[in-house]
Amino acid sequence: MSSTPHESQTFSAESYFETQPQPPSLLADIEGVHEFIERQRQANRSVVLVTSGGTTVPLELNVVRFLDNFSAGTRGATSAEYFLKAGYAVIFMHRQFSLQPFSRHYSHSTNPFLNFLEIDAALPSSSTIDSAFPYSNDPPPTTPTPQITVTTAERTKLFSVLRAYKAVHAQGTLHMISFVSVNEYLWLLRAVSREMSVLGRKAMYYLAAAVSDFFLPQQRLSEHKIQSGKGNLSIEMDQVPKILKPLVSEWNPEGFIVSFKLETDETILIPKAQQALERYGHQVVIGNDLHHRKYRVVLISPVAQADAAKKTDGVLEPQPKYAEFWIEIDPDQPSNHPKEIEEDIIEELLKRHNAWIEGS
Amino acid sequence: MSSTPHESQTFSAESYFETQPQPPSLLADIEGVHEFIERQRQANRSVVLVTSGGTTVPLELNVVRFLDNFSAGTRGATSAEYFLKAGYAVIFMHRQFSLQPFSRHYSHSTNPFLNFLEIDAALPSSSTIDSAFPYSNDPPPTTPTPQITVTTAERTKLFSVLRAYKAVHAQGTLHMISFVSVNEYLWLLRAVSREMSVLGRKAMYYLAAAVSDFFLPQQRLSEHKIQSGKGNLSIEMDQVPKILKPLVSEWNPEGFIVSFKLETDETILIPKAQQALERYGHQVVIGNDLHHRKYRVVLISPVAQADAAKKTDGVLEPQPKYAEFWIEIDPDQPSNHPKEIEEDIIEELLKRHNAWIEGS
Repeated sequence: MSSTPHESQTFSAESYFETQPQPPSLLADIEGVHEFIERQRQANRSVVLVTSGGTTVPLELNVVRFLDNFSAGTRGATSAEYFLKAGYAVIFMHRQFSLQPFSRHYSHSTNPFLNFLEIDAALPSSSTIDSAFPYSNDPPPTTPTPQITVTTAERTKLFSVLRAYKAVHAQGTLHMISFVSVNEYLWLLRAVSREMSVLGRKAMYYLAAAVSDFFLPQQRLSEHKIQSGKGNLSIEMDQVPKILKPLVSEWNPEGFIVSFKLETDETILIPKAQQALERYGHQVVIGNDLHHRKYRVVLISPVAQADAAKKTDGVLEPQPKYAEFWIEIDPDQPSNHPKEIEEDIIEELLKRHNAWIEGS
Repeated sequence: MSSTPHESQTFSAESYFETQPQPPSLLADIEGVHEFIERQRQANRSVVLVTSGGTTVPLELNVVRFLDNFSAGTRGATSAEYFLKAGYAVIFMHRQFSLQPFSRHYSHSTNPFLNFLEIDAALPSSSTIDSAFPYSNDPPPTTPTPQITVTTAERTKLFSVLRAYKAVHAQGTLHMISFVSVNEYLWLLRAVSREMSVLGRKAMYYLAAAVSDFFLPQQRLSEHKIQSGKGNLSIEMDQVPKILKPLVSEWNPEGFIVSFKLETDETILIPKAQQALERYGHQVVIGNDLHHRKYRVVLISPVAQADAAKKTDGVLEPQPKYAEFWIEIDPDQPSNHPKEIEEDIIEELLKRHNAWIEGS
C-alpha cells in the first residue's frame, strides 16, 4: 500500500460539507447539545467537548466493510472523569460502543461485572442449566426473586465509581453524543462547535478522537457488498479536510483548543505537532507515541509573544517559538490503585485554560 | 473503489500459513483448548466451536489503521447461550471486546449496568462530586462500605441471566478465546479444528464470525503510520484463501460444519450459498440479509443422495440438489421478553447434528 497523489479533487472543509450528506440524526443531537450548553451557561460552568474513540470510513453504502482507526477510547473516557471532577461540564462525543466515563472501569475487561455479583439465596439443588436459563419456558418461580449483591472484594471500588457516577448524573454535567463514521464526526464537530461559541473563552476542546485522515466520498461508494470472487481489492481514498482550520478561525475563535497527535515513530512527534500549531493557530497539541501513551505525553504550545521577546541581562536572546512540557508517570503502577496520566494532563490544562479565560 | 485482478500472487491455504506469521499467543491458546476438549470428551459431550465478531486487516505493522468487518457479535453470543442451554460445550472464539454470552444482555446498551445499581445507605449530605471520586485522595471512610444492590425493576431479568452464567461456569462448559486480526483468526481456526478432530462427529462448527475476504500480506505492510501529507491513499489487498476447503477435507472431515453468508442484496443469497456448498462440500450454509438478519434466515443444505433418487409413482423425478429451510420470527417482539431467532436456528441444527452423529 502507498500514499500517492492521484487525479481526484481535494476537499476543503467548505466543499466537504457541500458535497457529503448530513447525518439524519444531526438535528436531534444538536437540540440536546443546545439545551445542555444553555443550562451550563446559566450555571456559569466551563464546558469541555471531549471527543473520543476512532472514526470509521465505510467502503459500501450498505455497510459491511469499513476502514477504522485503532482506539478503545481510554484517553477520552478517563480524561472526561477528571474534567467532571474539576467541576467542568462535559460533552462526551464518542464512537458508539467505545469506553465511557465510569462504566469504563468495568468494560473491555477480563473481569466482567457478572463475576462480582452474588445471589443471596442458594440455588435450589434441583437447578440445572436448562431451568436456570433466561428464556426458559418454565413457570415463573413462586418464591420472590432473591436479592443480588456485590461481592465484598469489589465493593469498595465499585462504591466510589458508582457514587461519582450518581453525583454527576444528579448535577447534570455530563452529556453524551455518539458517532460511527468520520462523516458523522465532522458534521457533529462543526455543529457542536458553533453551539459552544456562546460560551466564549469558557469553551474548551479536547479532541482525543482518532479521526481518519482519509475517506471515500459518498459519490464513489459501492451500493452493495463488494464481491470477493472478482479478484483483489483496490481502494483509492481522498484526504479528509483539515477541520482544525475552520474550527479555530470561524466556528469558535475564542475557544481553548487542544488537539492530539498520535505517532508510532516518536522522532517525528514534535515536528508534526509544531507544524499543526503553525498551520491552525490553536493553543495546545498533545503528542503521544502509540507504545508509551499511557506513561508519557508532551504538551506543545506556542510561546507567548511577551515571553519570546524578553531579555536576559539586557541581551536579546533568540527564543524558541514553541514550548514543550513533558508529563510522565511511573509505568509500574499498583494494580489496585493505579495513577492515571490523564489526572496530570487535565491538571495542567486547567491552569492554562484559566489563564486563557483571564487573558480575555 | 473496485475489485480488480492485479499482478500479485494468489494465496492457497497452504501458502498462506507458509508465508504469514504465526501469532505469538497461539500455543498458549491451543493448550487451553486442548484441555477443555479432553474434559468434554471424557464427559461425552458434543462440542461446538462458535466463531463470532469481525476480523481486522491491519494496514500498518504498528497498528493505527485497519480494515474491519461490521459485526457486534450478537449472532454468535446469542447462539452460544442456546447451545449451552442444550447441553453442548462451547468454544467461543470471538473478536476481542465483541459481545459475549450472558454479559451481552448488559453490553453495547443505552442502559449501562451502573444505572441499575443502588447504594443502600444515603449519601452523606456533605458529599460533592470531588469527594465522591474514585481516585480522590481523601482519607478512606471510617464507616464500612455500604451494601450495593440491584434495583427491583431489573432484578428478575438479571437474576435469570446470572443464574445461567453461574451454572455454566460451575459445569465448565464454556471456553473463551479471542482474536483481533484475520491472521489470528485463521491460525486459531486451523489449530482448534485439528484439536476438535478427536471428537469425530460430535464436533460442530458454527462459523458466525464476519471474516474479511481480503488481507494485506505481512511482507507489504508499512512499518509506521502512513503519513497523510503525501496525497491520497491507495490500498491493494489480496484475497484471503478459502479456509472452508481444508477445514472440510483435511482438518476435520467428520465435523458438522455450518457456515454463514451475509449479503446486502437478498437476490444473490441463495445462489451464493449453493455455490459454497458445491465448492466445499460441508453441511449447512445459513444465509442472511443484513437488514432482516434478526427476523429471517435460510438454511441451505445438500439433499441426501437417497432422497434425490426417490421415485413418485414409479417415475424418476428430477430433485433439487439443495434444500432451503426458512426460519422466521415476528419482527414485533415484546421488549421485556423478546423471542430470539437464534433459539429456532439452534433447535433445527441440533436435530440435524443428531442425525449426523447417528449416520456415522
